[in-house]
Amino acid sequence: MAATGTLYGVGLGPGDPELLTLKAVRILQTVPVVAYLAPPDSRSQAREIAASWLGGQREVPIPVSCQADRSQANQAYNEAALILAQELEAGRDVALLCEGDPLFYGSFTYMMQRLAGRFPCVVIPGISSVNAVAAVTGRPLVTGNERIAVIPATVGEDALRQALAGYDSIAIMKPGRRRARIVELLQETGRLADAVYVEQATRPEQRIVTDITTLEPTPGPYFSLFLVSRGIAA
Amino acid sequence: MAATGTLYGVGLGPGDPELLTLKAVRILQTVPVVAYLAPPDSRSQAREIAASWLGGQREVPIPVSCQADRSQANQAYNEAALILAQELEAGRDVALLCEGDPLFYGSFTYMMQRLAGRFPCVVIPGISSVNAVAAVTGRPLVTGNERIAVIPATVGEDALRQALAGYDSIAIMKPGRRRARIVELLQETGRLADAVYVEQATRPEQRIVTDITTLEPTPGPYFSLFLVSRGIAA
Repeated sequence: MAATGTLYGVGLGPGDPELLTLKAVRILQTVPVVAYLAPPDSRSQAREIAASWLGGQREVPIPVSCQADRSQANQAYNEAALILAQELEAGRDVALLCEGDPLFYGSFTYMMQRLAGRFPCVVIPGISSVNAVAAVTGRPLVTGNERIAVIPATVGEDALRQALAGYDSIAIMKPGRRRARIVELLQETGRLADAVYVEQATRPEQRIVTDITTLEPTPGPYFSLFLVSRGIAA
Repeated sequence: MAATGTLYGVGLGPGDPELLTLKAVRILQTVPVVAYLAPPDSRSQAREIAASWLGGQREVPIPVSCQADRSQANQAYNEAALILAQELEAGRDVALLCEGDPLFYGSFTYMMQRLAGRFPCVVIPGISSVNAVAAVTGRPLVTGNERIAVIPATVGEDALRQALAGYDSIAIMKPGRRRARIVELLQETGRLADAVYVEQATRPEQRIVTDITTLEPTPGPYFSLFLVSRGIAA
């Protein structure tokens, strides 16, 4: 009887293929199976980031459509986990490609939740979009005794307002259709001058908006965030 | 007249040399000068992480002793910046080695603050200790609509208590001599079962404490943190 395979959650970073770690590359080069979750009607961005390291491995794209409600999403993750379990049970190590960091707003957590009890799971951390946005804008995240809060825009205005008032730095994730409202909240809390907005950090489509009052009052893309920080005053 | 050099803040990740990015390696291999801040009486941990990629470059260790007050620290950073400026003015690109991510509680920010106006500065993001701790403990940082706060233990108990009560996930940095008190605060706020404590994540000396009530009531090392998160409940 062969032993079961190991599930690797491989963080790929935010988009620039050079932001893969050496460890991620080594794992990709040694596993027999590379898997990735992908909407059935579009290409996998994770696969694109890792493309130069793919070739010999068998690829297992796992269709996961965007689900309207939690129970449908859970069902989709259950099915994805079954596909992964089949490989692992057959003794094959599987690298699951994860944009950014696998455990930072990543769907890898939902796979780990379903599979870690039965199979060895190893996580290769990746550069998160928050660290990438700081790097491409040259703005510090935190120094000294500063505190940072990371908040999805979907969480509601009270939580956003409290964080903007109480924290030195704030990353506002997934602004999407709340983008214009966030600009208003930044104005209201006096943090407009501390904020920068970035889409698709480190990708060819990267867009940096430093004067966020110029931002169109329309919904933005999924891969975008506001970084609010005190800058580099002496 | 030669153009001035570029200052690269090169994030090296938390300690495991395999967690360098491909980009960090490329920069290290192409710059003529590699610099690092180091206490005069001890080895540079950053240099140790990057050691396999050093050799041909000229190394510039910059002595920065631990300073008691802010004005002494500023003076030490001013002197460090002068040393870097000398190289950059001579047209040489310099890679400044940074543990973790350069802009996440890193002294690179203080160098950028002093030099970015006069010289091109490029930041290579690195894996932060927070992402590393999640990976080595297999605990999610945040999923879905969750929020995370990152707080230095030095910031005071009120801020810690508020974050523990209000945020799904909290990373408590630099516990040091406040370590035992933090365990009490976790108990008081009902977050004991959500917490894990890690020293020297991804380094050979790594230590993971999952039952933090067993933690010695003594000060801990500098490279350590508490991660509090809701785990992977369905």
